[in-house]
Amino acid sequence: MITAKYPPMGWNSWDCYGAAVDEKTVKANADYMAKNLRQYGWEYIVVDIEWYQPTVRTHEYLPFAELVMDKNGRLMPAENRFPSAKDGKGFAPLAEYVHSLGLKFGIHIMRGIPRQAVHEDCPVLGSEFTARQVAEFNDVCEWNPDMYGLNYNCKGAEDYYNSIFKLYAEWGVDFVKVDDIARNNDNEGEIMLIANAIKNSGREMVLSLSPGPAKTSQAEFLKKYANMWRITDDFWDKWELLYAMFERAEAWCNHSGPGHWPDCDMLPIGPINQVYSKDNRTNFTRDEQKTMMSLWCMMRSPLMIGGELNGFDEFTLSLVTNPELLEIEKTTFCAHMLERKEVDGCETITWFAPRVDGTGGYLALFNAGEKPVTISVPLDSIGITAHEAYDIWEKTTEPVDGAVSGVVEKHGVKLVRLK
Amino acid sequence: MITAKYPPMGWNSWDCYGAAVDEKTVKANADYMAKNLRQYGWEYIVVDIEWYQPTVRTHEYLPFAELVMDKNGRLMPAENRFPSAKDGKGFAPLAEYVHSLGLKFGIHIMRGIPRQAVHEDCPVLGSEFTARQVAEFNDVCEWNPDMYGLNYNCKGAEDYYNSIFKLYAEWGVDFVKVDDIARNNDNEGEIMLIANAIKNSGREMVLSLSPGPAKTSQAEFLKKYANMWRITDDFWDKWELLYAMFERAEAWCNHSGPGHWPDCDMLPIGPINQVYSKDNRTNFTRDEQKTMMSLWCMMRSPLMIGGELNGFDEFTLSLVTNPELLEIEKTTFCAHMLERKEVDGCETITWFAPRVDGTGGYLALFNAGEKPVTISVPLDSIGITAHEAYDIWEKTTEPVDGAVSGVVEKHGVKLVRLK
Amino acid sequence: MITAKYPPMGWNSWDCYGAAVDEKTVKANADYMAKNLRQYGWEYIVVDIEWYQPTVRTHEYLPFAELVMDKNGRLMPAENRFPSAKDGKGFAPLAEYVHSLGLKFGIHIMRGIPRQAVHEDCPVLGSEFTARQVAEFNDVCEWNPDMYGLNYNCKGAEDYYNSIFKLYAEWGVDFVKVDDIARNNDNEGEIMLIANAIKNSGREMVLSLSPGPAKTSQAEFLKKYANMWRITDDFWDKWELLYAMFERAEAWCNHSGPGHWPDCDMLPIGPINQVYSKDNRTNFTRDEQKTMMSLWCMMRSPLMIGGELNGFDEFTLSLVTNPELLEIEKTTFCAHMLERKEVDGCETITWFAPRVDGTGGYLALFNAGEKPVTISVPLDSIGITAHEAYDIWEKTTEPVDGAVSGVVEKHGVKLVRLK
Amino acid sequence: MITAKYPPMGWNSWDCYGAAVDEKTVKANADYMAKNLRQYGWEYIVVDIEWYQPTVRTHEYLPFAELVMDKNGRLMPAENRFPSAKDGKGFAPLAEYVHSLGLKFGIHIMRGIPRQAVHEDCPVLGSEFTARQVAEFNDVCEWNPDMYGLNYNCKGAEDYYNSIFKLYAEWGVDFVKVDDIARNNDNEGEIMLIANAIKNSGREMVLSLSPGPAKTSQAEFLKKYANMWRITDDFWDKWELLYAMFERAEAWCNHSGPGHWPDCDMLPIGPINQVYSKDNRTNFTRDEQKTMMSLWCMMRSPLMIGGELNGFDEFTLSLVTNPELLEIEKTTFCAHMLERKEVDGCETITWFAPRVDGTGGYLALFNAGEKPVTISVPLDSIGITAHEAYDIWEKTTEPVDGAVSGVVEKHGVKLVRLK
Repeated sequence: MITAKYPPMGWNSWDCYGAAVDEKTVKANADYMAKNLRQYGWEYIVVDIEWYQPTVRTHEYLPFAELVMDKNGRLMPAENRFPSAKDGKGFAPLAEYVHSLGLKFGIHIMRGIPRQAVHEDCPVLGSEFTARQVAEFNDVCEWNPDMYGLNYNCKGAEDYYNSIFKLYAEWGVDFVKVDDIARNNDNEGEIMLIANAIKNSGREMVLSLSPGPAKTSQAEFLKKYANMWRITDDFWDKWELLYAMFERAEAWCNHSGPGHWPDCDMLPIGPINQVYSKDNRTNFTRDEQKTMMSLWCMMRSPLMIGGELNGFDEFTLSLVTNPELLEIEKTTFCAHMLERKEVDGCETITWFAPRVDGTGGYLALFNAGEKPVTISVPLDSIGITAHEAYDIWEKTTEPVDGAVSGVVEKHGVKLVRLK
Repeated sequence: MITAKYPPMGWNSWDCYGAAVDEKTVKANADYMAKNLRQYGWEYIVVDIEWYQPTVRTHEYLPFAELVMDKNGRLMPAENRFPSAKDGKGFAPLAEYVHSLGLKFGIHIMRGIPRQAVHEDCPVLGSEFTARQVAEFNDVCEWNPDMYGLNYNCKGAEDYYNSIFKLYAEWGVDFVKVDDIARNNDNEGEIMLIANAIKNSGREMVLSLSPGPAKTSQAEFLKKYANMWRITDDFWDKWELLYAMFERAEAWCNHSGPGHWPDCDMLPIGPINQVYSKDNRTNFTRDEQKTMMSLWCMMRSPLMIGGELNGFDEFTLSLVTNPELLEIEKTTFCAHMLERKEVDGCETITWFAPRVDGTGGYLALFNAGEKPVTISVPLDSIGITAHEAYDIWEKTTEPVDGAVSGVVEKHGVKLVRLK
Repeated sequence: MITAKYPPMGWNSWDCYGAAVDEKTVKANADYMAKNLRQYGWEYIVVDIEWYQPTVRTHEYLPFAELVMDKNGRLMPAENRFPSAKDGKGFAPLAEYVHSLGLKFGIHIMRGIPRQAVHEDCPVLGSEFTARQVAEFNDVCEWNPDMYGLNYNCKGAEDYYNSIFKLYAEWGVDFVKVDDIARNNDNEGEIMLIANAIKNSGREMVLSLSPGPAKTSQAEFLKKYANMWRITDDFWDKWELLYAMFERAEAWCNHSGPGHWPDCDMLPIGPINQVYSKDNRTNFTRDEQKTMMSLWCMMRSPLMIGGELNGFDEFTLSLVTNPELLEIEKTTFCAHMLERKEVDGCETITWFAPRVDGTGGYLALFNAGEKPVTISVPLDSIGITAHEAYDIWEKTTEPVDGAVSGVVEKHGVKLVRLK
Repeated sequence: MITAKYPPMGWNSWDCYGAAVDEKTVKANADYMAKNLRQYGWEYIVVDIEWYQPTVRTHEYLPFAELVMDKNGRLMPAENRFPSAKDGKGFAPLAEYVHSLGLKFGIHIMRGIPRQAVHEDCPVLGSEFTARQVAEFNDVCEWNPDMYGLNYNCKGAEDYYNSIFKLYAEWGVDFVKVDDIARNNDNEGEIMLIANAIKNSGREMVLSLSPGPAKTSQAEFLKKYANMWRITDDFWDKWELLYAMFERAEAWCNHSGPGHWPDCDMLPIGPINQVYSKDNRTNFTRDEQKTMMSLWCMMRSPLMIGGELNGFDEFTLSLVTNPELLEIEKTTFCAHMLERKEVDGCETITWFAPRVDGTGGYLALFNAGEKPVTISVPLDSIGITAHEAYDIWEKTTEPVDGAVSGVVEKHGVKLVRLK
């Protein structure tokens, strides 16, 4: 059976809560998802970075902070943030709660072993090795202070990864986002240890790798060992980043397929950055949000909502509950860019995705320019025929006479299903 | 109407006759094509480089040779090689002959203006400029001595290109392969002049650009101004070059579409390099030839036969008269590589191309390794279902139970149509 | 005996007359030099580029102009510009005139063979080869249209170079500046042919190579085969170019020595660019001119005056008739930069050159900043002692008490001889 | 007064004892130096890396070992290796011993603050900051596990460096070799903190920076803030490394001067690598050792003996007690390479160094080839005259008639003083 047969869909705590998410918030988002989104295919609830750090308050890491850790150097949830983790229960109670809602539970980890475990020289569980023996003293993350990388040629490194994924399996984890690894040089040894540790854990887990940009030269390796991997650095609610995704999507789209999904990163929609102010909302315009949703779906990227679900307004909710849109993720293959050209001073970008069942396909007309522009795609430029087009955002049907055309707003999209 | 709605298919004189092809040979190949290949879609007969040079005998250019040229610096066929060109008729009689067989006629040109025209300072036809005024003294081809590049900002350069394409239109030329241009830096000005001169000529002509590798960063430009462009340097009958084409095909496949076809170069099959010895035949094994034909068709490259048609044996003929194979070029879209991985010490490469009409698609299993190997592609790894597979080379039908599998020979291919 | 035992000093026509210098002007400058400068060591009169082109009027080359050439493809002076060259005498009469003044005569050539000779296929004098056989069709200068490069592996190329240097020897040429060669890749074959042709000519000639920047990685090759070579692209009267010379001088100074002199290029002083307007004078300030003269002398660059001598004012004349300054060129060795540092917001640069005879040395204090600044060099920072310092520009003597100090103007220099 | 007016000369423990030198050994070498070498100018005794690590036994560092450290995160000598350091006396007793012999005492440190101090969060002495606040979590040495780099913009980093150099001043340290800094990017902030901390310590100390290659683009910065800096990676007794030094010496020689000395690294002569076997001796041939000593002296590199002095044989002793050789370090300036050329299939390299006092200079003729070769340097190629040459290695005097010549052995040198 293929893990992640379709692109995973869920919610992740980072965009809204940084490194400081807590149990109450996770539960509240799980509740919302179960009630409002589950029927549309959303299922993962993912706790992002530093759930083991008691004092972090924002997206900023505190160097050399004391982490919560068991005697074998395995990080444990900070109880001041995740009270149900008390008595060494870890994330098991929270996972159980999420499961009880019919959803799946995920966590984030940094590759490697805590520096704290190394300087305390913890014994690795079920191993002859200690933390000092498996850590690489000169392999440190550029942006997070918690870990040392592992010497993946050392049996003890394998033991350590097995020890933590065994724990995650016991907790009931369904999804692990491993960070500080996807774009790194010389990352293959450690990725293989991790993929193997998941297998050894006996529990199916989606393996997600961060941060991007992963290298296209590693595409075949990533398809073999991971379920999803980031294709850019962190994505936020800035048009420049969304615009840049078109090029990345073009480079990676041919590598989307059952079990392996190039990942455009979280969707910064609705209330985000709440850790700084309750007034923070995405900076994307409505058209930009439609463009983002359309591009992610056309290239079959995983979809991970970054905003606080309980603060979703009607528009935001409509973005993630459009069944014709989300259907693209599960019914298409072979999507790719058709053409990128200037029209009336605007850069226009068109994509096409055929349906697997042979009943037509999807055509997306993006306007990356700064004003509305009419975009037209003659069907014989693709080599196909069609009789009608259903506009997925406008929810209207129009006849097709040789071409799909329309006025597309600045930074906006016209997305149709051709029949 | 789209010029080159499907990938052009034809014969080109280079692989077999170098710069020394003559009228008799061209006619003989046209005769063969009309009789044996036309019904399979083959239609272009293309006279490659230096038809204006009376003394060339092989693939090697003679520096500073005297070229046949009219008083306006327009090159003319050397009459000792093309007798029908006498009395200033140029290629008109030969084109007429080819047309009379129901085929189309093409020629090769070097970009620019003959150095001979420049040193004689010929007046440009229909222009206020002379050859010395339109030529760039420091823009010379690295590998051919005939021409100077043109100053494309000069009106006289536009006049010169118009003057030669007007002549080609008068001759009845249907296809022009422009050389020393596709991979060059700063080539856009001259390509636009040429594309425009074709339009101004009033005759539809396919525009083919050489040599490769063209740059993928120029894909959108090339799709707009040319019908086909080379994606590698000259391709010959060496496994290393065929092997390298997989990577190029992967990079370019998404840019194949009506009117614009990334070009894998001529097919060096059958008798080639006849200019050196009548014993010369392609060095490719039969499996390698099938691999080549399969890859070219899967990525919808133009198909230009390089060997002497009249020397085709039964096997070679079978390569170019397999209707199920050639059908791929006209019935598919969105083809791309699926996976590249090691199996039993062999590198295996798989490609998939869906049919436009929704009735399944094509699956190619290539073995780039040095021994036979079993390759298997589970259909759920693509996301499709199918009941049977027709093996295009073996001409057999087999049931499909969740996967397409088979033993594939060294450097060989299994190519099936899925239904 | 060493050719160019000391750095050559002379006058060159380029800065003032571009490609359009004529016989009258050359003679007038020779007359001036003989009368006013010879006693200070100035001796070469060099006719720069395109003396064989009848129609050039400025520094701009006319593409594909008709050149004056003998039947063996050897360029000859244009008689409309050099009347004494009539009857095939070439530069012999002009050289004789220059020699009669006690001076030496030099010319400029482009490497290679005239394209005109190649398209006419001239026989190479004393050779079995013709011009078409020795020329490289794809080796053309980026900035001048006259020549093709030679295939230096061809015996005919050697013959051609021998044929022209034999002619120059007959004319009485003492100095040849070969252009389009010093900074080129793959230039060693042609430089060796030229150096050998000079040897074969039987006449001693200084070999000067242009344009720069030559590569420091070729220093040993250049020291072996040439007498001087340019270390920058063309130098003109702009502070930015003078400022940049400090770095080039630092990189090259260790390679100055008897017979081989890194060349900072002509001195654009006095009336320059006269070919455009008689009002044109150097844009350098007086301080900048002193800085230039000081740096050139400290690193023992050749000195070639670029301005019209007959228009020199008293200040300009003083620059080239300062015996204590010019003495540096002939009495020092081992000069190099001491230090480059900021003082009061100004970048200061100090150089030291010891005298060969052991009697002290020269210290230069340059101010590359935009305002006057006090610069001080403690002698123990060099490791030397001295009692007095003679200021070469101010012509004053001052006692030295452990350091040489002084206020140095913006872009100016204090240059002293230490005793 | 200038610190390091002449290139420092001494002994360093690394080549022979790696990270495992002890007090007894240091004293034994100091005793030998005082008795046999001091009169030739040798004066520094330097204890190299990890004197604070109790368990290291070779050149290999043990990751995450426990270091000896005071409560303020300042490393202290391991008492099991340096017994006199007991009772918190540090290196004061050993320094006193070395001083009592008329010699000077030096130590090695790694830039930064011990990771151990950071994970224990030691307070920085005399500062409001703690170790965790001054360390950079992602700035770690590639090859040694002991330290974190410091945030040099933080006042606490300045406090930490002041606190350790104050301690070194109290101990009586005369020379500090700071490691993991010379070739690093972005090293200027930390070097300035260190240079300033030495000044603040109130004691004169030579500042030596490692490892190389330092960047020539930083030459002026290094001349300003350090006394010596490595110009290559670690130098050992391999011809390839010695051969490569010629190019580095050529690039750096102009930057040798009072107070600032490009450093060719330790001299691996006599017994080295004793930590592995008492049988280990330098792999350099005698000629190679003479070549090394000659090149180091000609470019005025610091001289640090790497071998165990008490095991010196007569030949080795002769290398470091040749007064005419060592005199070069203190009497010359402006040395540089003259020429590098092939002679009879051997690469030959010549250097010249004039004497400051004007009484001639030194000429070195190196043979980098694989067989003996005759090398000759005409004096007029330098521009000098001389009557006799004293051969510094052969200790013979020969008359000079226009040239210095001699047969030079494979990898050997002829080194003469010209008078």
